[in-house]
Amino acid sequence: MAAMAGLKPEHFLWRMEGSVALVQLDRPDRKNPLTFDSYAELRDMFRALPYADDVDAVVFLPNGGNFCSGGDVHDIIGSLVGRDMKGLLAFTRMTGDLVKAMLNCQKPIVAAVDGVAVGAGAIIAMASDIRLATPEAKTAFLFTRVGLAGCDMGACAMLPRIIGQGRAAELLYTGRSMSGEEGERWGFYNRLVETGQLEAEALALAARIASGPTFAHGITKTQLNQEWSMGLEQAIEAEAQAQAICMQTRDFKRAYRAFVEKKTPVFEGD
Amino acid sequence: MAAMAGLKPEHFLWRMEGSVALVQLDRPDRKNPLTFDSYAELRDMFRALPYADDVDAVVFLPNGGNFCSGGDVHDIIGSLVGRDMKGLLAFTRMTGDLVKAMLNCQKPIVAAVDGVAVGAGAIIAMASDIRLATPEAKTAFLFTRVGLAGCDMGACAMLPRIIGQGRAAELLYTGRSMSGEEGERWGFYNRLVETGQLEAEALALAARIASGPTFAHGITKTQLNQEWSMGLEQAIEAEAQAQAICMQTRDFKRAYRAFVEKKTPVFEGD
Amino acid sequence: MAAMAGLKPEHFLWRMEGSVALVQLDRPDRKNPLTFDSYAELRDMFRALPYADDVDAVVFLPNGGNFCSGGDVHDIIGSLVGRDMKGLLAFTRMTGDLVKAMLNCQKPIVAAVDGVAVGAGAIIAMASDIRLATPEAKTAFLFTRVGLAGCDMGACAMLPRIIGQGRAAELLYTGRSMSGEEGERWGFYNRLVETGQLEAEALALAARIASGPTFAHGITKTQLNQEWSMGLEQAIEAEAQAQAICMQTRDFKRAYRAFVEKKTPVFEGD
Repeated sequence: MAAMAGLKPEHFLWRMEGSVALVQLDRPDRKNPLTFDSYAELRDMFRALPYADDVDAVVFLPNGGNFCSGGDVHDIIGSLVGRDMKGLLAFTRMTGDLVKAMLNCQKPIVAAVDGVAVGAGAIIAMASDIRLATPEAKTAFLFTRVGLAGCDMGACAMLPRIIGQGRAAELLYTGRSMSGEEGERWGFYNRLVETGQLEAEALALAARIASGPTFAHGITKTQLNQEWSMGLEQAIEAEAQAQAICMQTRDFKRAYRAFVEKKTPVFEGD
Repeated sequence: MAAMAGLKPEHFLWRMEGSVALVQLDRPDRKNPLTFDSYAELRDMFRALPYADDVDAVVFLPNGGNFCSGGDVHDIIGSLVGRDMKGLLAFTRMTGDLVKAMLNCQKPIVAAVDGVAVGAGAIIAMASDIRLATPEAKTAFLFTRVGLAGCDMGACAMLPRIIGQGRAAELLYTGRSMSGEEGERWGFYNRLVETGQLEAEALALAARIASGPTFAHGITKTQLNQEWSMGLEQAIEAEAQAQAICMQTRDFKRAYRAFVEKKTPVFEGD
Repeated sequence: MAAMAGLKPEHFLWRMEGSVALVQLDRPDRKNPLTFDSYAELRDMFRALPYADDVDAVVFLPNGGNFCSGGDVHDIIGSLVGRDMKGLLAFTRMTGDLVKAMLNCQKPIVAAVDGVAVGAGAIIAMASDIRLATPEAKTAFLFTRVGLAGCDMGACAMLPRIIGQGRAAELLYTGRSMSGEEGERWGFYNRLVETGQLEAEALALAARIASGPTFAHGITKTQLNQEWSMGLEQAIEAEAQAQAICMQTRDFKRAYRAFVEKKTPVFEGD
């Protein structure tokens, strides 16, 4: 697949602004729950992204004042109760595959969180690269509230790296809501913005990133995830190789020429 | 061992409030130093906890306004000076075994820190899952003050994950005291509470956690520690398996039924 | 090499205050860019440090109000454009080798950041153990501005451990400047100090560390880096061994004797 601008998803909204793809769940009356269908279609979309030359960054937007209320209790939880192990694992692996697809899509993802972002909704925010939020954002890893463990879709690995082990443990054991202000203070949110400005600010940030050297951004994303469990020395060698690859791009030459000519470089992603 | 409510430890205090075990060192006149005996008995207690069905959470309390002053200089340090390598390693492994036993006990541990929490006392707080403190808490990883390295009982691995690598390095190289306010700002303490409220707040938090799905909490604790050095993709698969296990518990069904009936779920830990 | 006080580097400044080595780049008119020569000479200096008995700590100072402006655009970037892969990798490995040498030098490094610390200058601050800064410090991992990836000299591994994954991602994708105030809040800087005090404060901190048990400090530094990707249990066993080694030093005995005699211990680093 070489282009995704024309994507017509059935279970979420999709539109482009320049080379930035805007994604939104579309059940605002119910705070945008995930269903089996939207899980699978989101996973497939993120899996296709590495091959889409027309998408340089993604923004995950709220809809109707809420980000995502997580797995639908009736559609998903009702169906899981009573499944056998094979059936349960098929579900938990599918949800994990959505996170893996987000991590491996090679494009920076900006989450714009407003209102409710709970359960799998909190995970989608967590698995994004950068997070903006409004002061009204309420993010909860509330798996414990439905009798489950905090280890859902990578939360026990990823949340501690974002906000620290102690804060992550409290959120995962209690399922309590993290406010926008707490999230910003703890490094979960990169910045708080007023509700009316959230979409514009998230889009501006994504557009700024998309105007940069996008091939190199893909390598940055790969390395941020790839070096997670490397030794320090191995990570440094991996970066020496990865950066040498980037030094053979035309974008590197473009930047140097622009500097010599005292101009602003125009990157083209190759 | 199926029940631990009746435990009669010789070298620390032990009592139950519901299914929450309260642990206290008991030499308040000397700010509660650890001795060879209390180290070993604490280790054995935490090692027995996975099999104790009547304990769902642990609170480690201060005594007489102080948490723990670390290894007793006369009892422990005096005895170590002059030991051969076999004898030294027997000691450092025993202290490490206390931390391992805390990590592997499958029950969330809340540390309630007041006054002095230094040396091995700081480590006990660090190895707990959640930490509350008073503004008077003074926590110091002061191994360097007695001529030793900061790498004691896992501090070089765990402290950076809680407060960040740079702040951990300063505390470990200088041995300086971290104030309650700093600790809260840095994510070492989840919350500061007034001295008079510390025990009640810690107990309320532990009781709240103990009222949740305790089998699932045990899995949360296991994964928080188990995924420490996994690759991201491996962690996500590990969570898919771990959460599928939790989806076969009765607590998961109880939560779903309570939701459908618009009631609050009552978890039973199975 | 047993002594480095007499070092006469060609491409940076070097002087001793007691057993603390002070390092400064020396092109203040151009905000202290790195060149091929200074990169290589710094690498060689840090590689020699483990054998230098007269150096117990290092302070990396600014010069003329700026820390370091990174790789010189004319000397370095101009030369890299057009190199083949073998030549590029030789360069990226040399820069990585500087970071590895800093990590492996066994002496704590304090970075004193004022003004501009960008590109490889930001990396030198990041690869130090402790960082002080003035409110005027502007630190930017601006590789993306020259068409490259954020994964330079270990940044994708190290920066997330210092300030958290989300904040690191934003800095690496956008290349934007982190202010002194942000850096302190996020844990990149241990403390902000007024410009006029920066050198004195950094030196005082390094001198305080150098007056401690320096053999043990070397073990602390080794373990802080060595345990980066270990499992928790393995890290605890590694620390049991490392601390047992430190318990055989004379500094440990000196501290105990001083305690018994109610004196302040004088450490000698053996």
